[in-house]
Amino acid sequence: MRHDHLITSKQLSRADIETVLDRAAEIADDPAAAADRHTNALLGLLFFEPSTRTKMSFETAMKRLGGNVVDMGSVESSSVKKGETLADTVRVIEGYADALVLRHPKQGAAAMASEFVDVPLLNAGDGAGHHPTQTMLDLYTIRENAGLDDLTIGIMGDLKYGRTVHSLAYALTNFDTRQHFISPESLQLPREVVYDLHQQDDTQIREHEALESVLSSLDVLYVTRIQRERFPDENEYQKVAGEYQIDLETLEEASDDLTIMHPLPRVDEIAPEIDETEHAAYFEQAHNGVPVRMALLDLLLSGGEADE
Amino acid sequence: MRHDHLITSKQLSRADIETVLDRAAEIADDPAAAADRHTNALLGLLFFEPSTRTKMSFETAMKRLGGNVVDMGSVESSSVKKGETLADTVRVIEGYADALVLRHPKQGAAAMASEFVDVPLLNAGDGAGHHPTQTMLDLYTIRENAGLDDLTIGIMGDLKYGRTVHSLAYALTNFDTRQHFISPESLQLPREVVYDLHQQDDTQIREHEALESVLSSLDVLYVTRIQRERFPDENEYQKVAGEYQIDLETLEEASDDLTIMHPLPRVDEIAPEIDETEHAAYFEQAHNGVPVRMALLDLLLSGGEADE
Amino acid sequence: MRHDHLITSKQLSRADIETVLDRAAEIADDPAAAADRHTNALLGLLFFEPSTRTKMSFETAMKRLGGNVVDMGSVESSSVKKGETLADTVRVIEGYADALVLRHPKQGAAAMASEFVDVPLLNAGDGAGHHPTQTMLDLYTIRENAGLDDLTIGIMGDLKYGRTVHSLAYALTNFDTRQHFISPESLQLPREVVYDLHQQDDTQIREHEALESVLSSLDVLYVTRIQRERFPDENEYQKVAGEYQIDLETLEEASDDLTIMHPLPRVDEIAPEIDETEHAAYFEQAHNGVPVRMALLDLLLSGGEADE
Repeated sequence: MRHDHLITSKQLSRADIETVLDRAAEIADDPAAAADRHTNALLGLLFFEPSTRTKMSFETAMKRLGGNVVDMGSVESSSVKKGETLADTVRVIEGYADALVLRHPKQGAAAMASEFVDVPLLNAGDGAGHHPTQTMLDLYTIRENAGLDDLTIGIMGDLKYGRTVHSLAYALTNFDTRQHFISPESLQLPREVVYDLHQQDDTQIREHEALESVLSSLDVLYVTRIQRERFPDENEYQKVAGEYQIDLETLEEASDDLTIMHPLPRVDEIAPEIDETEHAAYFEQAHNGVPVRMALLDLLLSGGEADE
Repeated sequence: MRHDHLITSKQLSRADIETVLDRAAEIADDPAAAADRHTNALLGLLFFEPSTRTKMSFETAMKRLGGNVVDMGSVESSSVKKGETLADTVRVIEGYADALVLRHPKQGAAAMASEFVDVPLLNAGDGAGHHPTQTMLDLYTIRENAGLDDLTIGIMGDLKYGRTVHSLAYALTNFDTRQHFISPESLQLPREVVYDLHQQDDTQIREHEALESVLSSLDVLYVTRIQRERFPDENEYQKVAGEYQIDLETLEEASDDLTIMHPLPRVDEIAPEIDETEHAAYFEQAHNGVPVRMALLDLLLSGGEADE
Repeated sequence: MRHDHLITSKQLSRADIETVLDRAAEIADDPAAAADRHTNALLGLLFFEPSTRTKMSFETAMKRLGGNVVDMGSVESSSVKKGETLADTVRVIEGYADALVLRHPKQGAAAMASEFVDVPLLNAGDGAGHHPTQTMLDLYTIRENAGLDDLTIGIMGDLKYGRTVHSLAYALTNFDTRQHFISPESLQLPREVVYDLHQQDDTQIREHEALESVLSSLDVLYVTRIQRERFPDENEYQKVAGEYQIDLETLEEASDDLTIMHPLPRVDEIAPEIDETEHAAYFEQAHNGVPVRMALLDLLLSGGEADE
């Protein structure tokens, strides 16, 4: 990696992705070896939107590298309430930290903020924009469970609004993949995303309204939550949501090796009875956030050099 | 101790309790010796209800052992708002931490959660259920000030709703104690608790409405807050609360060696003029939360082996 | 320094101030040398009012010294809600920490609280009272940019309510300074502050309604925010605020060496076009909070001895 900031997964080449995943695998193999790698380093956390998983995962990653964090806290308790611009906020906080993590509700916020700071800035989600560290841990989980080449993946649920899904789909075009998108018609992938994906070599994409038509061919099924608030009518929601829920019966046609992923939190997209099967990889996926973010922090804090 | 989790003080034998208190005493004697004992260990904090004292005390304990914490933050800022189950939340967060501390408003939450995780889980209060680390620091404070055998203790205030009081009363049945319960009739111990206590050998219990009838015989007086919101009528509250307040005049009949405890925060159950007397042990009691929780974390993180 | 607590900058002599600034300069020169200076030390954070900058800056300072923090969290989630007194809260929390930082909305809170604790307590703002660590970082920034002797400084904006301004004005009387106060009439310095300042040797003070009358003579211009909520009438606010905004055109008459400071956050008192000029010292000023607070913590935790 030769980047100062991590803003979008689109900026990353296949070689970049593999560098990160390889480093994450090394760390996962021997976490103790990384425990003092960034002693005394401080990571600044700027979360302008609530987050449990992403924030705790970054915090854990930094502390597992021997460092610590300083947290801006909630927007309600911050100077933002007094009308401070994002540019000013990040310029102040970069004086406290060796790297910054930013989540912000506005698309483009991370890219803009990165122009004002000299320390590495990692985008932890910018509205409908990007969330590249989520994409990296998804890729890591796919590689560990099914491999990234010659992959057949189904991506199901809310494909219209889910930034996680768009980022993953783009990132997978670096590899030799067949991508199946399964959703109700009203929550299909945006047409511009479909168009972009069609331009890529080595990528085949198809869209479906029903899982059953494609389930048996899948190596990985990536499930996302369908948000009730997207639907004007509760009955409409109930009908749609029910068709995109996974339970043991749904899986009768699936390969024994099928890996099921979910960015979590889930509500009822995946029945608890799946948790105990070999298919379930979603808790492992959440846990993979730690070595993957350790790898990213390590590479950025070391100036892009894996110096060992 | 041979436990993976700490859910209730009822699970602890006299030997277990003494192991913890002995380790806490060692740590209190020489805190510096424990300062690097769990370097790099991370404690996950899951507080589904507000808490200052318990949370800060756990946080301090972990940091005094050389480790650090990762905090889920408030429920308002977490995935719980999105409908995630407690079982999912703890399964995700166990991937970040070497042990978990859980406070939850629902009785039984800690026991349920502990079935889903492989790392040690400590109950920091589950609604009207248990709060075993509070009990341990209460026992430690009693042992340091008055000894745990041949003890005459008065427990006063809100005995109906106070889980602190119930846990302590049960735990004391491991020792040779006389327990006096002092409260207005409407806030008496629940009958099933009285019944249980009566079944124990070596334990004598009696109930009183007035402190004066028993004060002179006490080694320890444990005062709890009577909560205004328990009373439908403000006048009723004022009358009752006034009768269970301690000041210098109240103590004229008390032994010079009487130790006064309180789980804090207090409102006006104990007059500030008591603070400067030898009787006052409530700030010491709060401070004892640190060595006691260090001892518990040390024992659980070391797999039940005091390996030194 | 021979103080146990830091409550007001008025308690500090010129020698005290220079001890702190000298130590801060040493730390800023070679931060790595301080990185393990207070390993295992814990700083208790008690912020009864929201704060981003001051809190993060203290937190960073402690962690840059190798220590860690324990944070009471917001008042809403604390025992304060249950009616606990400040005296009780600080007596409990001093059992967790090696030093305390207190911000409180009531003037005099820090002085009162300091009487109840044995560990060093640092005032991080007490209502309309004092904020001595802000004053120290202001002094440090002035010394680095313009020197503290033979200084001509303009202090502009809301001079009536700004505690930052009052503390700085008092502290500067330890040095040979000319102080110009520039504000609308309704936001002039309180008369008692003017009176006090007039009593000091080596200090000349003057008041102005317009910046232009004095701008060309200034070494430093310290700008503060005029708060909209001080004005009953929005038009009145707009008129006043507009006259106390700085842009490139305003600065035509200024010295090339003019240093512009601001305690931040700013709203529109200083145009962004100033940020790129040599005049702008406000981000540097915010960043100086770290070495200055490291110096203060180091001196207080070392018992007033700069022991190296």
